[in-house]
Amino acid sequence: MKKIGLVVVFVTTMFTLAATAAFASNPKYVFFFLGDGMANAQIQTTEAYLTTANGDSATLATDLQKSENRLNMTQMPVHGMQMTYDAYALMTDSASSATAFSCGIKTKSGVINMNPEGTVSYKSVAQLAHEKGMKVGVISSVSLDHATPAAYYASVASRNNYADIEIQLAESGYEFFGGGGMKKYDTDEAVQTAIEENGYTILNDRESIMALNNEPMDKVICINPWLQDSSAMPYAIDRPETNVSLAEMTQVAISVLHGDNQEQNNKNRAWKKNRSRQNSRNGFFLMVEGGKIDWACHANDAMAAIGDTLAFDDAVGVALEFYKKYPNDTLIIVTGDHETGGMTIGHATTKYGAHYEKLLGQTNSFVYFDQEVLPKFGCRASLSADSDMLEKIYEKFGLVYSELNDYQKEKLDDAYVQSVCGGNTNSEAENTYLYGGYEALTVTLTHILNENASIGWTSYSHTGVPVSVFATGADAELFNGFYDNTDIAKKIAKALNIHESLPVLK
Amino acid sequence: MKKIGLVVVFVTTMFTLAATAAFASNPKYVFFFLGDGMANAQIQTTEAYLTTANGDSATLATDLQKSENRLNMTQMPVHGMQMTYDAYALMTDSASSATAFSCGIKTKSGVINMNPEGTVSYKSVAQLAHEKGMKVGVISSVSLDHATPAAYYASVASRNNYADIEIQLAESGYEFFGGGGMKKYDTDEAVQTAIEENGYTILNDRESIMALNNEPMDKVICINPWLQDSSAMPYAIDRPETNVSLAEMTQVAISVLHGDNQEQNNKNRAWKKNRSRQNSRNGFFLMVEGGKIDWACHANDAMAAIGDTLAFDDAVGVALEFYKKYPNDTLIIVTGDHETGGMTIGHATTKYGAHYEKLLGQTNSFVYFDQEVLPKFGCRASLSADSDMLEKIYEKFGLVYSELNDYQKEKLDDAYVQSVCGGNTNSEAENTYLYGGYEALTVTLTHILNENASIGWTSYSHTGVPVSVFATGADAELFNGFYDNTDIAKKIAKALNIHESLPVLK
Repeated sequence: MKKIGLVVVFVTTMFTLAATAAFASNPKYVFFFLGDGMANAQIQTTEAYLTTANGDSATLATDLQKSENRLNMTQMPVHGMQMTYDAYALMTDSASSATAFSCGIKTKSGVINMNPEGTVSYKSVAQLAHEKGMKVGVISSVSLDHATPAAYYASVASRNNYADIEIQLAESGYEFFGGGGMKKYDTDEAVQTAIEENGYTILNDRESIMALNNEPMDKVICINPWLQDSSAMPYAIDRPETNVSLAEMTQVAISVLHGDNQEQNNKNRAWKKNRSRQNSRNGFFLMVEGGKIDWACHANDAMAAIGDTLAFDDAVGVALEFYKKYPNDTLIIVTGDHETGGMTIGHATTKYGAHYEKLLGQTNSFVYFDQEVLPKFGCRASLSADSDMLEKIYEKFGLVYSELNDYQKEKLDDAYVQSVCGGNTNSEAENTYLYGGYEALTVTLTHILNENASIGWTSYSHTGVPVSVFATGADAELFNGFYDNTDIAKKIAKALNIHESLPVLK
Repeated sequence: MKKIGLVVVFVTTMFTLAATAAFASNPKYVFFFLGDGMANAQIQTTEAYLTTANGDSATLATDLQKSENRLNMTQMPVHGMQMTYDAYALMTDSASSATAFSCGIKTKSGVINMNPEGTVSYKSVAQLAHEKGMKVGVISSVSLDHATPAAYYASVASRNNYADIEIQLAESGYEFFGGGGMKKYDTDEAVQTAIEENGYTILNDRESIMALNNEPMDKVICINPWLQDSSAMPYAIDRPETNVSLAEMTQVAISVLHGDNQEQNNKNRAWKKNRSRQNSRNGFFLMVEGGKIDWACHANDAMAAIGDTLAFDDAVGVALEFYKKYPNDTLIIVTGDHETGGMTIGHATTKYGAHYEKLLGQTNSFVYFDQEVLPKFGCRASLSADSDMLEKIYEKFGLVYSELNDYQKEKLDDAYVQSVCGGNTNSEAENTYLYGGYEALTVTLTHILNENASIGWTSYSHTGVPVSVFATGADAELFNGFYDNTDIAKKIAKALNIHESLPVLK
């Protein structure tokens, strides 16, 4: 009898332990990485590019398989897949998808953390974590009031209510914000007042931001010194060294939220010990968005997208370093919100060939070309007669006009006339299809470069393909399977044990 | 001491049991479903179409989420992702990918179950299962000697060695083959002799094939009566009732390999009992390929691809019914070998809109239009003046010429001249891009219909995006994660306990 009793107790214990291990490790440190517009085509393309950039071949399996040619995210042990449609659209926007990830509800495109009608607000997993005493950080490479970051601290009926969003940012009480800027801050007094009254410090130079690694402060907003477009950080391919990268910003956030940082270990041991104890008591939730992968894909610029995917994955790498120190307490999740651009790994003209080495010829993003190069050129008789432009095209995209086929030349000629001479003779429908509202010459250049490398595009908008979820660490196995995007929030909430079920009314 | 000993023994037992449960259930009945050219775009598009075809809306989450609007495969509990590149190509072909799935090795495009040099042969998981005493069945909607089915019984340096492949089919000794035909059988005496000498019976009418459900026979080759193109079954959208569907063929195969069939239960109880006992002793391995999803996507015909994806998923449904009867002994795996066509769920012209109801207007595949419609038309002054053709276009694709935009009309006019009048004035490069070697008018019609529905294409070849793996049943959890396509063979071999590790030399 006694023996049986022991066995029964033991079995119960084993099952409880097993259940705990499988479903309720309750990690203290949770990272949620969101690659905006990043689906499997973006990920696999980036790995093929990385293989080429590292001097290997993107058409050799043995090269593609090398660990150094793989992204951090795809080497994680857990993988899932989420369907991305929102309440009323097969192709979601970033507001409704962010709401799915943060609140666990389907809503309408454009709405953040509210029902489709915009009448009821819901709490995000970050807000619930903060109420529980966890520290919270929000990082984005685009502006901090953009749809994805906003979904972690704000609820608004329209993602365009930037002033409202920024005031909610100020009222969030979150310990860390970093990345791009705030669209309304400079011109809206109410926003300025809210930021000040809620005790936030704004830092916007590299030195003071990086200094947080050694002397962390709470309630800090770190804005990069050079913002390229719409208050966003520049594309990684255009980044000056005076800016802070997404990976560096992630390390700074960890220093603020946890006090864990390599440099500190040497410099300020006593302080670190104390701070680490204080900060790590309740853990933290950190959301990091690579927001311009999406913007690059809207413009069909593969190299800009690849550069930002690599920068995003470098940030994942920083979290993985942290995970190695606290493997039992850390959970890292990486996903995208939807695909953008209808990117495909292959093109009608290259068939089964892949020529990623051609991408190495591109040295700046489409935005850089639009802003810094194109304005300096005036209309000449034709593109083929404009040797200065042809030289610039070679310099910035590695393309040699004379080497293009007749159809490519024809398209580039039309685009030159459209961009530099004030309008071509194509029908409106053809120009919509060819340029999608982007600068004709630039988008045609990236189209040609990409198709020569064997990358195709079908759209200038989001598309509806499901998106991969990668995870590692405590409770990572929750993210196995094929599920709805709203399940992401529910799984995070389960891991954090922050509430029995989502959504939670605000 | 005794107590501790007991605990130690118990712990060891628990761990062994846990390990057994997690990694070695060793299912007796294994189904491997392979959708050729079927990646996530094809799957999600089919679900969106199904939602529309069922009278619901493909832009309403609540409709898309209904179980009846979801495919069987995406509702399976286990999901993984496999990278598809082969030894020397980012975009694999179906021979090297089939080799990855069946032998667990990377080889060169075009090679089946051999090293890239074509000098060393490897055994497939099906051959190893057969050697172990399991029955084996191979089904394909394309010809039975095509790359994917061939990889389960043959090894050849070139997938085009059809006669050699068919002789190896005959020598396989497998119990069941079904679907399309054999390219060389009618004209090659050596093939005919091999089939005969190895004791195979060929059935090629619906009645005798379906009769196998009640009176199974071993070593049978079931060829559909009407083969549409290259000895393949017709596209599901074109199937006459006198043909056997992929789902019906799957049920017939189960009857042959296992003796389990509903009808039989009533008619021949005694025989069934006996047969079932005999056949189920060592279990079976059944490979089912939906081979024309790929062909439809090569031609950029979304509706033909959707029809064949639905037919393929219906076959998965038959396996799921079997699984319900033998849940502890059955493993079902579903995947694709690569994406084809660069299909995307979204298009430049429709932006965030999705109009799947437009697809309902297409009533036949592109092949049907090429074979049965186009040959009846001669060149007239222009497409807009050819009222008979315009009527046929409406009848077969639901497209109204006058409702198209200027750019679409221009493309269709050019394609009409190319297809019906003997050549247009486009550059060769433009025609390659627009038609990819397909019948100009037909491929332009599917392009326009698809883009109006919000489906884009970038290629007429395979593309390199990773592909989902769905699984359910015993040992299904082996298929979680993000892995190489060669891991599929290794996981199947592990589940079957057929060999410690792959590859195995032949």
